[in-house]
Amino acid sequence: MLSVQKFGGSSVANVDRIQKVAERVSRTVERGHRVVAVVSAMGDTTDELIDLLAQVTDRPPDREYDVLVSTGEIVSAALLACALRTRGHNAVSMTGPQIGIHTDGVYRKAKIVKIRADRIREALDAGCVVTVAGFQGINEAGEITTLGRGGSDTTAVALAVALEADVCEIFTDVEGVFSADPRLVPRARKIPRIAYDEMLELATAGARVMQSRAVEFGAKFGVRIHVRSSFSEGEGTMIENVETNGWGEAGMERVFIRGVAHDANQAKITVAGVPDKPGVAATLFGALADERINVDVIVQSATAVDKNDISFTVNRDDLDRAIEISKSASEELGGGEVTADENIAKVSIVGIAMAQHAGVAATMFRTLASHGINIQMISTSEIRISVIVERSQMEEAVRALHSAFGLDAPEGA
Amino acid sequence: MLSVQKFGGSSVANVDRIQKVAERVSRTVERGHRVVAVVSAMGDTTDELIDLLAQVTDRPPDREYDVLVSTGEIVSAALLACALRTRGHNAVSMTGPQIGIHTDGVYRKAKIVKIRADRIREALDAGCVVTVAGFQGINEAGEITTLGRGGSDTTAVALAVALEADVCEIFTDVEGVFSADPRLVPRARKIPRIAYDEMLELATAGARVMQSRAVEFGAKFGVRIHVRSSFSEGEGTMIENVETNGWGEAGMERVFIRGVAHDANQAKITVAGVPDKPGVAATLFGALADERINVDVIVQSATAVDKNDISFTVNRDDLDRAIEISKSASEELGGGEVTADENIAKVSIVGIAMAQHAGVAATMFRTLASHGINIQMISTSEIRISVIVERSQMEEAVRALHSAFGLDAPEGA
Repeated sequence: MLSVQKFGGSSVANVDRIQKVAERVSRTVERGHRVVAVVSAMGDTTDELIDLLAQVTDRPPDREYDVLVSTGEIVSAALLACALRTRGHNAVSMTGPQIGIHTDGVYRKAKIVKIRADRIREALDAGCVVTVAGFQGINEAGEITTLGRGGSDTTAVALAVALEADVCEIFTDVEGVFSADPRLVPRARKIPRIAYDEMLELATAGARVMQSRAVEFGAKFGVRIHVRSSFSEGEGTMIENVETNGWGEAGMERVFIRGVAHDANQAKITVAGVPDKPGVAATLFGALADERINVDVIVQSATAVDKNDISFTVNRDDLDRAIEISKSASEELGGGEVTADENIAKVSIVGIAMAQHAGVAATMFRTLASHGINIQMISTSEIRISVIVERSQMEEAVRALHSAFGLDAPEGA
Repeated sequence: MLSVQKFGGSSVANVDRIQKVAERVSRTVERGHRVVAVVSAMGDTTDELIDLLAQVTDRPPDREYDVLVSTGEIVSAALLACALRTRGHNAVSMTGPQIGIHTDGVYRKAKIVKIRADRIREALDAGCVVTVAGFQGINEAGEITTLGRGGSDTTAVALAVALEADVCEIFTDVEGVFSADPRLVPRARKIPRIAYDEMLELATAGARVMQSRAVEFGAKFGVRIHVRSSFSEGEGTMIENVETNGWGEAGMERVFIRGVAHDANQAKITVAGVPDKPGVAATLFGALADERINVDVIVQSATAVDKNDISFTVNRDDLDRAIEISKSASEELGGGEVTADENIAKVSIVGIAMAQHAGVAATMFRTLASHGINIQMISTSEIRISVIVERSQMEEAVRALHSAFGLDAPEGA
């Protein structure tokens, strides 16, 4: 059996933890498995490198940014290989150019074009454990390119595809994927199996367990992804193809919803009184996209004849820039005032069974209403319903929905 | 004009210094020159990485050692490229695999086999300043290999050869090469021009300005090497072909000696009473070489019929291991006691003119005798005479010789 194991920054934060990772990899090898271990940079290394860069220049060139930050993962990979060798394993590390991950060449958020994993395969065939510097590849010209935030997850899943691994294990600091954040909902349950789409929606909705891009990759190529804890031996959550009917493990309990996610890191912008004519949304959201600001929930409402209000949410970190851009767009469009509200949060329910069951939305809205929680905005996908509520009511909303959809673990479990 | 400029670890120790280096490179570019800037790792970075490694394993595998430590130079190269860009220069960094330095594949002390500098040349032709991660190359299999201590000097000189640069400038924290260490000899003079061989002997004799390997490289291919200060604009020392007679700049002053070097980092081992028969030296020094211990001065003296004492010096850091090896060699050879003396130092005079002038050695020994300095061991090359003296007399010996050979700068100069 071949397993691609990924260990994030907190799992390799210091030498002691790297030793723990080495023990973990050792145990897998000693069970007769072959292992490719993908690692992130140690703890805060990447942030420290970015900080150095910020001291040198206000506008770091993307190419050099990638050269710089890719070194953090190389350090982890080399150290882990050494730690494995002291445990008697034949281990070799591989850096960006050696891994064989070829990208489209867009610096800082490169996409994987193809993988030539011959070198890793040869090393595996020679009986080596291969430690891989995550988050990086090279483009056609041999330039170092990084895969963006969470890129090591993508490295791991992509290598699992290329090497036809039996499983891709994502080791993290939580036990797996939960039906809600256990810090908010003490009766949240660990989800033993989850469909790719559900995981994607949960990730987008604010569950920070895994990057959505890596999940997409897994879905596309059908790689089973096991999200589990670095610090314990227990089973985590298996992300895989799950039948959309049936719900084997839930039996007759009518669990339509897999989980409740929240995201407190959003802010709302409203552009008032923009003319009701074609191209308005394109101007506003085009300007935001040009500045790489992701817009999440969008609501447009008619307030007067020929006038609309447009509200949308952005990441709070982008709020100031988004307000600025919105103001000049509003001016350009002959619109009115731009206002912002930071005291909001997004609460989402996710489940692929929802598509086949009427009344899920109604249950959600009724539950919130009965708790006196006002819904400011609504956004839906086929398997997700998100609402924007006041931040102070977020926790209550999550708990109420978790309960209403029968997700609470039995008392005392 | 094309200049390869090399900046060592202290020149890029922090962000401020990297900015200073960028200013320096900028000025060269603004004078219409093309520049390739080779950088070492920032300050203590390499030591910090080695320290991390030591925490992970007692016996770091050489391959992983090289992968790990090569990241330090990459960080510097990327940061310098960014600093140059903010100054309006088109700058790109290059890492080991991109530079085109192909090595023999011996990890940790790889030798350069060939350089395919096409990539650097293309970047230069495109009007770029190229910043290069020093100290590293790749072997035929694409593995990262480092060039050993002082490897960035070698990178710079080798690139100067490959690119047919007009000059290789080694920026360092001293003003150039001096006739003696100015901390010991206040009247030491900066040497404006020095021959490759002299520089080599001085480097071997303890002058720590530049690695001898890089000088050898320069000598072999006739690259002019300008050793100068990172912190001032003054001319430093040009290492180049110098006529062995003539001595243009010294005129009629009869300066046979270029400089006096000292090395306080030596220790002496004596193996007493070894049999006077073939193969004895081979056994002893072979065993030391197997453990990569460099032996410097060697003296063998007959103490009795069929018995010799062998004394030799090693680096103090190697002393304990050298004693151990010598003891077992002595046992094997039927020799006697092994003793060690740490209170010694090596003092050397160097000058290519010495070969053509009788009496240099006599002057040296007479001078030391007149200061009551006892000579414990002597070693000579064609252009160098080294003596081992008691450590406490080292400084006096250096000053006396500097004066005796007419090297002192004029009073008040």
